[in-house]
Amino acid sequence: MATVREVTLDLLRAHGMTTIFGNPGSTELPMLAELPDDFNYILGLQELPVVGMADGFAQASGRTTHVNLHTAPGVGNAVGGIFNAQANRSPLLITAGQQVRPQIAMEANLTNREAVKGPEPYVKWSHEPSRAQDVPAAIARAIHHASLPPRGPAFVSIPMDDWAQEADDTAAHTIARTVSGRSTPDPQTLAELAGRIAEAANPVLIAGPDIDASGGWDDAVKLAERQRLPVWATPAPGGGRIGFPENHPNFRGVLPPAIGPAAETLAGHDLILVVGSSVFPYYPYIPGPLLAPGASLVQITCDPGEAARAPMGQAIVGDVALALGRLLELLGESGRSAPEPRPEPGPPAEADPMSGSSAMAALADVWPEDGIAVVETPSSTVALRNRLRLSRPGSYYFSASGGLGYGISAAVGVQLAQPSRPVVCVLGEGSAQYGITALWTAAAYKVPVTFLVLRNEEYMILKWFAEFEGADGLPGLDLPGVDVAAIANAYGVPAREVEGREELTESLREAIAAQDGPRLVQVRVASGMWLD
Amino acid sequence: MATVREVTLDLLRAHGMTTIFGNPGSTELPMLAELPDDFNYILGLQELPVVGMADGFAQASGRTTHVNLHTAPGVGNAVGGIFNAQANRSPLLITAGQQVRPQIAMEANLTNREAVKGPEPYVKWSHEPSRAQDVPAAIARAIHHASLPPRGPAFVSIPMDDWAQEADDTAAHTIARTVSGRSTPDPQTLAELAGRIAEAANPVLIAGPDIDASGGWDDAVKLAERQRLPVWATPAPGGGRIGFPENHPNFRGVLPPAIGPAAETLAGHDLILVVGSSVFPYYPYIPGPLLAPGASLVQITCDPGEAARAPMGQAIVGDVALALGRLLELLGESGRSAPEPRPEPGPPAEADPMSGSSAMAALADVWPEDGIAVVETPSSTVALRNRLRLSRPGSYYFSASGGLGYGISAAVGVQLAQPSRPVVCVLGEGSAQYGITALWTAAAYKVPVTFLVLRNEEYMILKWFAEFEGADGLPGLDLPGVDVAAIANAYGVPAREVEGREELTESLREAIAAQDGPRLVQVRVASGMWLD
Repeated sequence: MATVREVTLDLLRAHGMTTIFGNPGSTELPMLAELPDDFNYILGLQELPVVGMADGFAQASGRTTHVNLHTAPGVGNAVGGIFNAQANRSPLLITAGQQVRPQIAMEANLTNREAVKGPEPYVKWSHEPSRAQDVPAAIARAIHHASLPPRGPAFVSIPMDDWAQEADDTAAHTIARTVSGRSTPDPQTLAELAGRIAEAANPVLIAGPDIDASGGWDDAVKLAERQRLPVWATPAPGGGRIGFPENHPNFRGVLPPAIGPAAETLAGHDLILVVGSSVFPYYPYIPGPLLAPGASLVQITCDPGEAARAPMGQAIVGDVALALGRLLELLGESGRSAPEPRPEPGPPAEADPMSGSSAMAALADVWPEDGIAVVETPSSTVALRNRLRLSRPGSYYFSASGGLGYGISAAVGVQLAQPSRPVVCVLGEGSAQYGITALWTAAAYKVPVTFLVLRNEEYMILKWFAEFEGADGLPGLDLPGVDVAAIANAYGVPAREVEGREELTESLREAIAAQDGPRLVQVRVASGMWLD
Repeated sequence: MATVREVTLDLLRAHGMTTIFGNPGSTELPMLAELPDDFNYILGLQELPVVGMADGFAQASGRTTHVNLHTAPGVGNAVGGIFNAQANRSPLLITAGQQVRPQIAMEANLTNREAVKGPEPYVKWSHEPSRAQDVPAAIARAIHHASLPPRGPAFVSIPMDDWAQEADDTAAHTIARTVSGRSTPDPQTLAELAGRIAEAANPVLIAGPDIDASGGWDDAVKLAERQRLPVWATPAPGGGRIGFPENHPNFRGVLPPAIGPAAETLAGHDLILVVGSSVFPYYPYIPGPLLAPGASLVQITCDPGEAARAPMGQAIVGDVALALGRLLELLGESGRSAPEPRPEPGPPAEADPMSGSSAMAALADVWPEDGIAVVETPSSTVALRNRLRLSRPGSYYFSASGGLGYGISAAVGVQLAQPSRPVVCVLGEGSAQYGITALWTAAAYKVPVTFLVLRNEEYMILKWFAEFEGADGLPGLDLPGVDVAAIANAYGVPAREVEGREELTESLREAIAAQDGPRLVQVRVASGMWLD
């Protein structure tokens, strides 16, 4: 009879899950010993980057991805990343080691006392099998949970003495099972919705991240074109991916992230169709009517929780791509007139050092057609969206949780999943710090990400919020002496600080062209929020 | 009437809690705005180091210490540190911001959905007040929970719109309350124990971290001397502090961290008195009898959980220092003969590059009498204990959880709490990575810690465990190209890599003497576990 470990390795193979992102500890050694050659272990130096890398890999590959963590303290360091992965709907199998069973009751050192309860608020399923023979089925179940919509992380804690035990005879079934969960919303509901879209005077589409994740990109474009829908992107804080080509003539921009301004922006539309997004990822609190008078809202989401908690409108739960496909079958060409294309971006704001908008304009100048942006630059995110106008699916990743420590790590994971597409990670020097050690993994595994660091010596987004809230005299918002280029060089990532738009443009061009490993370009930017 | 914020600031003042360790986000701005001059905010660049700094500060000052975190993702990044603080019994008030109350039900971005449940497994109390007026009392309650034995972290989530609300008229009572919880164990039980100690043929004392934390150091020494007790330190993995002077003639060494070897080491003792420690912080699983034949064990601990879960012996719950004081009142000089002093450390193992023992010998050569060691070097911890033989209270801090990411941060906190004592933090280059950004705080606040990094290009402790477990062919145990000296320089900490014992000794001497800020010395050490 095979061991628990052998069955588990076969299970992972059956799911194509032979890449493991991890930071090992003693409790993981029995699983990792003699790791077969068809498995690939990517080492991170801290757990937050480990989860971030897996998150990027899972999203960019579309495949459930294995994260292996150390018992309690390792899982603890990862919680912020698991929270991000949940918001990003990243399908992750997270396994962690545990003390040997005979030493759990006495809480020997490194016992994960609250192995199930700890990650529970942040995962779809959290479990520690009662006996070794249940480990493969528990891991299979976690993979299924992670993969079913809405996708997300699932967690299994595994006592380290379980791996060498004999598996039982359920293993073949465990390995062979498949589970699928995509479903088309109720035909009657979609037919009614199609009728409402066709009949609306001035409908609008709000495109959310799940359009991209579900594979509904092309159908969203067809629907907007056929029905002459102007399209807004869901507010940036919840826009973990973009759901619509941002250079498309129907595209209007990114919806403001607050109740009053969002409703105002959408005033005049009688039907607001929100696809693949929460309603809405508001952030600052600017009260106002949730909808302008005369507007009604319909949301299509794969997430029952997202449907239940929305403060207004009708929600339809089901697969976003399947729903879009069905709507296209039901809807012909509309007689409405097509929206006017929005203007090209104007010249960026002048400043010394350069504005974030200038830096984004430089990036746009060298942007490769198939480039992927991984974004963690709170004060320049909107400028980046406006300047790059990304227009291919799978081209933008951002942490929808609002959590930091995602950018560098996710970029490494995205690049590993998409080796033929150039990945550019845009960071602030402050946000870069939360998962900084992922730079080492980029260097050690020669992952050819280009990192662009905008250095402003402050937490600009917080200064902007403070101004908005009328708060003054705040400690801890200045960041003197955080030189990410120097740190990157220390981790083995060739890096330099450049000056002026011309040098920035050239450095970015070279960095993006380099295929032999990561590069980092740092540029000083002026204080400010850069919105265009 | 005063605002919730004004009352809270007065409450913090009343408890002497005017130092705040934090990493701010938008949800914390209303609390931090116009922070009065008598408050001191210490910025960390990621949440794990923020908690680690506060942990060190709380332990080294003996005072409950305030940590301020960002809503869900900030709390998430901190969980590993909170787990450490729990194991270290660090009294921490942890506060975190939360969305405004009107945007919680809809889960607007950065809502801490599981504000209470998330930290709950790792804290003594976790709470989000139901209304703004309850915030000061909730914070007071968390301070009391944190301060009562066994001390530890307590958590309060605070919606950001609460701070500006008017407080109610309970504020004066909230601010004025004091709560104390130290208690002497039952006199009858202690009298019986004193009798058993006096009558035992060959009793032994196991000294745990709570002897130091409770202030029982001098009485532990008196008890050992008066009763001629040989003394072992509790196994290193759970030794967050040392409980007995390690240069004392009665001191035998550090107990091995496994069931079989620990019982063997103590064989021949008829009474094993464990003071201020769990029974025991075992780590590797080496089965065997829990106690040698003829031995009985008595544990004195302030922690009911530690008492309940011990696998053998009698437990007495109460304050360790008070219990030791009472035992001294009950016990006279014993007629037993005093233990033979153990030999001085021999010459360290020769290796090229040097052994960890040589590096520790160099450190011992320049060790200042009042030095404090903060230790996160898994492969050289035991050698450090043997070479330094620290012999003053409050001189040793180590993460009793087994979690990494504690060392650099805790050292910064300890140094801030003990500005007149030289703090030396000894790290591996691997363990340094988990909370590396604390180097920036050390530099930015000119905290004069000396960091000593032992660089072996591997996770040596894991290779040692793997050998012990007979595991081979493991990925992820080598760490090429992690140059902490270069990283430290990038963060503004003057750092160099040195070679040979002489250069190491001189560099350490200079670094320890420097008062104007931190220094880092890195030295290559040979592969190996260094136990003497």
